[in-house]
Amino acid sequence: MTLHGNNFIGHTLASTSDETSTATNPATGVTLDCSFTAASMEEVKQAAECSQSAFAIYSKLSQLKRAEFLDAIGDEIMALGDELVQRAMDETALPEARITGERGRTVNQLRAFANLLRDGSWLEATIDLADPNRTPVPKVDIRRMLIPIGPVVVFAASNFPLAFSTAGGDTASALAGGNPVIVKAHSGHPGTSELVANAIIAASQKTNMPNGVFSMLHGSGRTVGQALVKHPRVKAVGFTGSTHAGRTLFNIANDRPEPIPDFAEMGSINPVLVTPKALSNDGDSIATAYAGSITLGTGQFCTNPGLIIGLDSVELDNFVTILGKAIDKVTPSTMLNPVVFSGFSKSYQKVLAQPGISVVGQSEEAADADKLQARPTVGAVDAKTFLTNQELHCEVFGPFSLVVKCADAEELLQVVTSLEGQLTASVMAEETEFPEYATVIDTLQSRVGRILFNGVPTGVEVCSAMQHGGPYPAATDSRFTSVGTAAIKRFVRPIAYQNWPDAALPDELQNNNPLGIWRLVDNSWTANKIV
Amino acid sequence: MTLHGNNFIGHTLASTSDETSTATNPATGVTLDCSFTAASMEEVKQAAECSQSAFAIYSKLSQLKRAEFLDAIGDEIMALGDELVQRAMDETALPEARITGERGRTVNQLRAFANLLRDGSWLEATIDLADPNRTPVPKVDIRRMLIPIGPVVVFAASNFPLAFSTAGGDTASALAGGNPVIVKAHSGHPGTSELVANAIIAASQKTNMPNGVFSMLHGSGRTVGQALVKHPRVKAVGFTGSTHAGRTLFNIANDRPEPIPDFAEMGSINPVLVTPKALSNDGDSIATAYAGSITLGTGQFCTNPGLIIGLDSVELDNFVTILGKAIDKVTPSTMLNPVVFSGFSKSYQKVLAQPGISVVGQSEEAADADKLQARPTVGAVDAKTFLTNQELHCEVFGPFSLVVKCADAEELLQVVTSLEGQLTASVMAEETEFPEYATVIDTLQSRVGRILFNGVPTGVEVCSAMQHGGPYPAATDSRFTSVGTAAIKRFVRPIAYQNWPDAALPDELQNNNPLGIWRLVDNSWTANKIV
Repeated sequence: MTLHGNNFIGHTLASTSDETSTATNPATGVTLDCSFTAASMEEVKQAAECSQSAFAIYSKLSQLKRAEFLDAIGDEIMALGDELVQRAMDETALPEARITGERGRTVNQLRAFANLLRDGSWLEATIDLADPNRTPVPKVDIRRMLIPIGPVVVFAASNFPLAFSTAGGDTASALAGGNPVIVKAHSGHPGTSELVANAIIAASQKTNMPNGVFSMLHGSGRTVGQALVKHPRVKAVGFTGSTHAGRTLFNIANDRPEPIPDFAEMGSINPVLVTPKALSNDGDSIATAYAGSITLGTGQFCTNPGLIIGLDSVELDNFVTILGKAIDKVTPSTMLNPVVFSGFSKSYQKVLAQPGISVVGQSEEAADADKLQARPTVGAVDAKTFLTNQELHCEVFGPFSLVVKCADAEELLQVVTSLEGQLTASVMAEETEFPEYATVIDTLQSRVGRILFNGVPTGVEVCSAMQHGGPYPAATDSRFTSVGTAAIKRFVRPIAYQNWPDAALPDELQNNNPLGIWRLVDNSWTANKIV
Repeated sequence: MTLHGNNFIGHTLASTSDETSTATNPATGVTLDCSFTAASMEEVKQAAECSQSAFAIYSKLSQLKRAEFLDAIGDEIMALGDELVQRAMDETALPEARITGERGRTVNQLRAFANLLRDGSWLEATIDLADPNRTPVPKVDIRRMLIPIGPVVVFAASNFPLAFSTAGGDTASALAGGNPVIVKAHSGHPGTSELVANAIIAASQKTNMPNGVFSMLHGSGRTVGQALVKHPRVKAVGFTGSTHAGRTLFNIANDRPEPIPDFAEMGSINPVLVTPKALSNDGDSIATAYAGSITLGTGQFCTNPGLIIGLDSVELDNFVTILGKAIDKVTPSTMLNPVVFSGFSKSYQKVLAQPGISVVGQSEEAADADKLQARPTVGAVDAKTFLTNQELHCEVFGPFSLVVKCADAEELLQVVTSLEGQLTASVMAEETEFPEYATVIDTLQSRVGRILFNGVPTGVEVCSAMQHGGPYPAATDSRFTSVGTAAIKRFVRPIAYQNWPDAALPDELQNNNPLGIWRLVDNSWTANKIV
C-alpha cells in the first residue's frame, strides 16, 4: 500500500495546506517515505461538522451494530499484516515483538469493547417504577441509561503507536460509547497512523457506518490540536502524553464558552515501597524484576517505576547493589523520537546534577546520541535530600529510577506523604507486614489509581477492573480510567425518561428487556423482564 | 434554641471576624434575630485542615457506620420540630406546607443514601481473577471499587433552604461517599442553616464521627466561597445556583494548580413541546397543569417550565387563552430574597420589552414590591422573533413562561435546535405522534438530562434513576446528577488493587464477599462468594 499523506475528513482525503512533514527512523535518522500534510483550519472545521453529521446517525445505532464495527476494525488492522508492523518499527524503533504484541493488545481491546456492547449491561440501565398509590404524591416512572456524548477528539500518544494511538483505547472507548472520533495523529508515527486510519475507514464502509464516524488530521498539537478542542461541535477530549500538553488542552477545554470533559492521562513516577523483610527474603529477584521494569521499552511507559523507597538498611544496600549491576548490563536503546530523547537526556542529567545524588547503576555501554539512544541509569538519594528538592519528584520519561533511602519509619511516611497523584504504586513486602506499614500503605492508596502487591507496575491489563488514571497530575479527572472497558464511561452521559411510552424507549429500558441486560429495577439488580 | 451566629469548624464554634450580617423576612422586611459572623480567611484554613484530619478517619469507616450517621442526621433534623419550620418560613417566605414537605424530602434523601450504603452494591466492585496459565503472559488479579475523594465544599442554594442546603442532596451524597463536608451557608437563610448544622453536629457526636466530618461557614461567595474552592485540602465542589456564580467557581476549581471536579447545577428554561393533537384532546387540563407548574413556589424551581413550544394553530390559541386566564387568577407571592426579586423583576421586564412579545396572561393583582412579590406572567412570541433574539433564550428565575408559536414543523425543529443544554424537556403529545415528531424529540433528548412525557417538570423524584443535570449550561458536567442516589458518584473515584492480599482488601472486594454485595466478577454480575 502506498502512503498518501492526506488527512481523513470522514471517508474523504484532503490536503489543502502547504505545511508538510515527514517521519524519521529514530535509530538511523533516515527520512521515511511519504510527506504528510497538516490539516488546514478549514479542514478542522470540516472534520468537526462531518463528525457531528455522523453523530446524528451513529449515536442511534444499536450496540450490536457498533460491536460489528469495532470487530471489523480489528480484522482490518490484522489484514494490514507485515506492512503495519514494519512501518511502526521504522517510525518508533520499537522491536518487532513489541509491535506485534501491541497490535494484539490493540485488536483485543477493540474486541473487549465489542463484547461489552454485545453484553449491553454496562450502560447502567436503572428503572424506578411508578407507584400511583403513593402519598402524598403519586410516584412517577423514571428510567435512566447512558447515551453518547458527541464527537470526541483523541490525541494519540508517541509511546504506543498502536494501543494508545489511532485505534487505541481512547478511540475504541469513544466509538463503543456511540461517538464519532477525530484523531489528531501523532507526528512521530504518521505512516502507522495512516495505515490504521485506512483500516478504520475500510471497516466503517464494510459495516455501513455513517461517513464521519472516524476522521484523522495531521498537524501540530498547538494549531490543529487546539483548534479541534475549541470547536463547538466537539464534546469531549481523550489525551495521553506530557503534563504540559495535557494541562494546556485541559485548560482550553474548560475555558470554552461550553466547557467539555477533557480526560488527560499525563503519567507519573509510580513509587515502589520495598520493605527490609521483602528484600531479605527475595532481594535478588526483586532487583532483577525491577531492572527489567525500569528499562522495558526503553523506559517509555507511563507506568515506569521511577521511584523506589526503602528503609536504609543492609538489605536495601544489597538490593541497590544488585539492581545497579543489573542496570549496568542493560544496553542502551533508541528512544521514540528526538523530542523524547532530548527530554530524557535533559531530565535525567538534571536529576543526577542535584546535590546528594549518587549513580548506583548505569549501562556500561555508552549511548549513541545519533541513534537517539538512552543510557539506562539508576540513582540514589537520602530522604532528607529528596524531601527538600522538588526536582527529584519530577517524572523522568525513560529508563531511569531513583532509590530513596529513609532513615526511619517516620521519614518513610514523610516521603510517601510528599508524593503527588500517581497512576500506580507498588508495595514489595511480606503480607504479615501490612499492620506495621498500615499508615504508609493508606497514604500510598490515597495518591494512586492502582496499587500493586509484589509486582511491577508496567504491563497494564485491559480488563473490566483496571484503573489507569489517578489523582492529579497523573490524570485530569481521577474519577475515570483510560484503560479497560470502564474507559467508555468518559464519553457517555445519563439521560432519564419520565413516564415515557414503552415503545418509544430505547430497547435497554423497555419493560420486556429485549436485550436481556442487567438492570437496577426498584433498587434490585435483575436481568428479568418487567411484568 | 437561641441562635448563636457562629461558624462551625467541625464541632468548634468560631467567630473572629468583624463582618456580620442578619437575615430578613422577605415578606415583611423585618430583621430576624441573631447576627451571623462571616468566616475569616484563617477560619477557612482551619475548616479545611479540620476536614482533612477527619477524612483520614471518616473515609475508612464502614458503609454501615456512615449509614448510621446519615440516619441520625435525619432524626436530629426532625427533632428540631417547629422551630426549624418557623425559622425557614421566616427567612424564605415559603409557606408551611412547602417547608414541612421539603423537610420530609430532605430526611428521606438522607435515608435513601443510608439505604444505598447498607445495600453496598453501588460502589461498582469489579473483580477480574488471575489466570496463571494465560499465554503469552499470566493474567494478574485486579479488583476495583469506588473510594472517597476528599473534603467536599457544598454551596447551599437559596430556593430549597433544606433540600439543597446544609443537609441537602450535595451534603448527603458527599457524606455518603465517605467525604467530610464544608458547607458555605446561604446568606438568605443563615438561621435555618445553623439549626440544621447543629443537628448534623449532634448526629456526628452521637454516632462517634470524627471532629471535622462537617463544618459550616458564613460569609460571601466571593470571599469565603472562593477561598474554600481554592484551598488545596478541598477535593471537590457541589453547587446549585446561578449560571454566573456556578461558572465562576467552576473556573476557579479548574484553574487551581491541582484542578478539582466542580459539579454546578445552574438551572435552565426547561422547554415544553405541545402538539396540536395533545391540545385538542386535553388542552384545558394541560393549561391548568402548566399554570400550576409555572407558578409553583413562586416559580423558584430549577425545573420551572420557562418555554412552551407549539405549532401555530387554533388548538395552540385556545391553550394560550386558557393558560393566560389561569395565570390571571394566580395571586402574586413573595420571592426568596431581594436579589432573587430584583433579578426576576429585571429579567421578565426585559423579555416583555423585546419586540414582538405579547403578554397573554398576568396576575390581575398587582405585585407589592415592598413584600418582594413576583407577578406571575406568561408571554408569547412567534418563532421567527424567538430565533433571532438571544435575550428570549435566557432563564427568567420566577413565575414566568414564554409561549413560542411556530409556523410549521420546520420552524419547530429550528426552535428546538436553537436551544442550549437543559435540565429537562417535556413532550405533551399523543403516543401515536412519536414518529411524526421523531427528529424534534431526538433533538430535545440531545439537549437535556431528563425528558418527560405528558407531565410537568417541577417535582424532582429522589430515586436511583433520577438524572438532575444536563448538557452545559444546565450543569458543568453532564456525566453526573445532583439529585437521586447516583449523585454519590460525583464524590468518589475508583482504585484498583493488583494481586493484593485478600485479608488486606476492603470487605467489598474480598473473596468471601462478607457484605453480600453485587459485584462484576469476570464480567458477570453476582452476589456470590468467590470460591
